[in-house]
Amino acid sequence: MKKSGLLILNTGNGKGKTTAALGQAMRAVGHGFKVCIIQFIKSNTRTGEANALALLGNNVELHVKGSGFTWEEKDKEKLKKTSLAAWEFAREKITGGGYDMIILDELTYLLSSGLVDSAEVLATLRNRPENLHIVVTGRDAPRELIDAADLVTRMEEVKHPYKAGIKARKGIEF
Amino acid sequence: MKKSGLLILNTGNGKGKTTAALGQAMRAVGHGFKVCIIQFIKSNTRTGEANALALLGNNVELHVKGSGFTWEEKDKEKLKKTSLAAWEFAREKITGGGYDMIILDELTYLLSSGLVDSAEVLATLRNRPENLHIVVTGRDAPRELIDAADLVTRMEEVKHPYKAGIKARKGIEF
Repeated sequence: MKKSGLLILNTGNGKGKTTAALGQAMRAVGHGFKVCIIQFIKSNTRTGEANALALLGNNVELHVKGSGFTWEEKDKEKLKKTSLAAWEFAREKITGGGYDMIILDELTYLLSSGLVDSAEVLATLRNRPENLHIVVTGRDAPRELIDAADLVTRMEEVKHPYKAGIKARKGIEF
Repeated sequence: MKKSGLLILNTGNGKGKTTAALGQAMRAVGHGFKVCIIQFIKSNTRTGEANALALLGNNVELHVKGSGFTWEEKDKEKLKKTSLAAWEFAREKITGGGYDMIILDELTYLLSSGLVDSAEVLATLRNRPENLHIVVTGRDAPRELIDAADLVTRMEEVKHPYKAGIKARKGIEF
């Protein structure tokens, strides 16, 4: 039996993975879906998306669960603890019902870096409630996640302005 | 002198080109930008994005200018007329000022099919007001557009559920 809720994956090294997930949330909310967005890396709560999501009303929730870590983060134990807590929060949202779409923004980083148990995450995603759409974003998606997903898009960087010396800016990058 | 407003292009055969542009609009509106979205192909005004954009208030406008044509459209003259009128509308929005970001959704179709004068469109995009960000979406972006753009992402289809017999659905595709 094919599930009705899709597992959607936006991966690749280019822009647009999170941005497309935000657009997906907007479209879903526009049809009266209940949407939950969990950001696993970002710690900034004053982003353009946060401001705009607030305007969309009660059908969409944003949970910023990252510690804003970089790959140079020294305290690996702290990082692991934050990541695990964020995943456990997400798992409750997934298994608890009450949403039509859940967006797991940059979840792949937690998988590829071994910060959470990939097998357990994969099992939770595969066993999601039948009508729940899940959108996962992030680079370096593991093969098992690609296999489990219904719809996979790779955002590939063709040209990037930072390489031409232009800085990240408000309203574009965040 | 480098312009401050970026020309952003989402192309490729995969999903997420329009969806990422919608997310971009949301993020921009969240920072108080004034955003104008023009859809060149879609004729449906009852989409999830239209409903959600209405919730975002007066800082974002959506103009649905397509005739909903397919590539089997018989009346080529009518198609050309609709396309030209849509482009002229967009050109006024671009040159007239008053926006921080303009999204030209599926504009590439008009260029690749010769429905509008590519050279003129390119010149208008290149000569945009200095602080205006323009986002263009669509497959088969011509080389000159890629060259003119600051940020280019190719959305590549890795796996698509329609090939597994799943139909387009509300809240996901539209």
